[in-house]
Amino acid sequence: MIYLDNAATTPVRPEVFEEMKPYFTEHFGNASSIYSIAKDSKKAMDKARKQVADAIGAKPEEIFFTGCGSESDNWALKGTADALSKKGKHIITTKIEHHAILHTAEFLEKHGFEVTYLDVDKYGFINIEELKKAIRDDTILISVMFANNEIGTIEPIAEIGKIAHERGILFHTDAVQAMGHVKIDVNKMNIDMLSISGHKLGAQKGIGVLYKRNGIKISQLIHGGAQEQQQRAGTENIPAIVGLGKAAELAVKEMDETNARITKLRDKLINGLLEKIPYCSLNGHPSKRLPGNVNMSFDFIEGESMLLMLDMKGICASSGSACTSSSLDPSHVLLAIGLPHEKAHGSLRFTIGRENTEEDIDYVIETLPPIVEKLRAMSPLYEDFLKKNKQ
Amino acid sequence: MIYLDNAATTPVRPEVFEEMKPYFTEHFGNASSIYSIAKDSKKAMDKARKQVADAIGAKPEEIFFTGCGSESDNWALKGTADALSKKGKHIITTKIEHHAILHTAEFLEKHGFEVTYLDVDKYGFINIEELKKAIRDDTILISVMFANNEIGTIEPIAEIGKIAHERGILFHTDAVQAMGHVKIDVNKMNIDMLSISGHKLGAQKGIGVLYKRNGIKISQLIHGGAQEQQQRAGTENIPAIVGLGKAAELAVKEMDETNARITKLRDKLINGLLEKIPYCSLNGHPSKRLPGNVNMSFDFIEGESMLLMLDMKGICASSGSACTSSSLDPSHVLLAIGLPHEKAHGSLRFTIGRENTEEDIDYVIETLPPIVEKLRAMSPLYEDFLKKNKQ
Repeated sequence: MIYLDNAATTPVRPEVFEEMKPYFTEHFGNASSIYSIAKDSKKAMDKARKQVADAIGAKPEEIFFTGCGSESDNWALKGTADALSKKGKHIITTKIEHHAILHTAEFLEKHGFEVTYLDVDKYGFINIEELKKAIRDDTILISVMFANNEIGTIEPIAEIGKIAHERGILFHTDAVQAMGHVKIDVNKMNIDMLSISGHKLGAQKGIGVLYKRNGIKISQLIHGGAQEQQQRAGTENIPAIVGLGKAAELAVKEMDETNARITKLRDKLINGLLEKIPYCSLNGHPSKRLPGNVNMSFDFIEGESMLLMLDMKGICASSGSACTSSSLDPSHVLLAIGLPHEKAHGSLRFTIGRENTEEDIDYVIETLPPIVEKLRAMSPLYEDFLKKNKQ
Repeated sequence: MIYLDNAATTPVRPEVFEEMKPYFTEHFGNASSIYSIAKDSKKAMDKARKQVADAIGAKPEEIFFTGCGSESDNWALKGTADALSKKGKHIITTKIEHHAILHTAEFLEKHGFEVTYLDVDKYGFINIEELKKAIRDDTILISVMFANNEIGTIEPIAEIGKIAHERGILFHTDAVQAMGHVKIDVNKMNIDMLSISGHKLGAQKGIGVLYKRNGIKISQLIHGGAQEQQQRAGTENIPAIVGLGKAAELAVKEMDETNARITKLRDKLINGLLEKIPYCSLNGHPSKRLPGNVNMSFDFIEGESMLLMLDMKGICASSGSACTSSSLDPSHVLLAIGLPHEKAHGSLRFTIGRENTEEDIDYVIETLPPIVEKLRAMSPLYEDFLKKNKQ
């Protein structure tokens, strides 16, 4: 099996799983208790908190563990909205955010908040001037994703952070896809809040982080016990937290080397497919994209059919976000960069991870062209196109 | 080490961990994706959903996996409040709920809801007549915990459910402590929503469930992807879900046998301590309590000091809920059953689990009396008491 859907999820890294193991059955204490085995849990959690903090240039007390990246996004938006509603009720985000942001923003709109959804250009970049114009006196939050989950576009986060801070507005970024793959420095980039998901970088599913700058007060999303500085209730998930700490540390340590290798594979795949398959095109920016992200449109055919045939050949890819796979609507991201519906429907995303090899890429470059050809041979759209071209 | 804090958390059962293992590094697919390894994840999750459903007499589609029991409680209360606010803004709960309920209720009070906190008697039982009187035309939710986390009192859930349904009011119960230890049938007991936490019954921390009866519509707490029937976003935590399914199945299968054994150990511990230690008393009901729960007050001394000395002797116990251990306030539960502050401060909770033996109990009965004696010898309260008694 060739797994090329690392943006959907990654396996837990073996080194990470090894670190986690003792905390399931042996060092299982509740970190809030006072006896010795509980202190072991607390100590392990403190270490992981520091590992995550170090990975993004934050302080350990600014790291809050959550149940997933979506929870972090929900907390940042709803928590800010609830805490600052007297200051203002306007939020700025973009049209290409993950649904954890978009659906939360829609929920807030139903509760009296106004949301500006910034447009993006054909590569998926927001326009900085448009952002400046969107800012109002009652804007309380700007939330722009660090890197897009579908097309891999990396937004100008430091620039956005600078503008937000000049205007005294909180800046949140959903870094679920960027974490571990792009250098992040919350101070240099003026990031106030940042969401992380463990399973996108070799840690377990069901663990996330909200980085929250010291001094920022937002309302709680999960009320209850006194965990996480009395800001996020629920018994701490020690094995998953330990794993996330380790995964973050490894990702940052190996980033330069891994990115160099993966970027080469990415560009090989893009160029190989562009060369071999007529009527296909790259979505997103050629270079300002996540190292492992390849998103391409193949005219006249459906992404879903290509995926099924790739699966039969042992290749795992996706047609967009896994989180929306049960929906038949075309990707909101591809529509936002200006793709027509048919092109958006005919798109594939390959996301390369640290375990992929050059052989994997060669195999895809060899396997996909005949699949596309076969599907086009059955496509009425392609038939129409050929007829028109003959005339 | 003798671990007697099973209400705070339990180790992952070895059989449970074995089931979980393949889903970390091998069968790691995102359950929302369409290729084969993703379908393995989906299949494993479906099995676990059925195991949990079977354990409480529910249907699989009524089981929603969450990030923890606290999230489930928050979702039930806030989701109902948001969805039914036009019908009414009154909620009924009790004074002895876990903080995941109480602090959520307080949050709702700040947002225009009215909450009635029912009193409890000296054993911790709510009064059914008082409940009936508290119901108003604008009551939208009754939330009463199944069994108390500190004193183990098991509330008359079926009676409460019957009243709620006669009056057309939704009934939620926090069953975090009851699940796996008490027989639960959501239909016979007229339960509409029920919260579960995995790590209290031998599954991992960081996984919970909200059971929600078919047809009940509450607002989402975590917005985003289309997971969990589009009602709880976030990539599903397959290993933890698989583990919870297995743990729920085992707990129900072994319940009669385990409870018989643990109840005997509980009563031995209670009677042994009552016999050997003067001026101590049991908190909660002598028999209508969780099989493993022992909560006792030791006059004139502090729970914290006893805990530290017990820890030095290798015994893990607690002075109440682990979730509030960083607080210096006396337990709200012990105050609610009428204990004066000093008695509440001098309380210990031992919670017996399936791994405890008769030797463990013997050791505690042998170890605690001299600790109590030693601490009393240093206690000015005890000195005063002796002086007064001499006169």
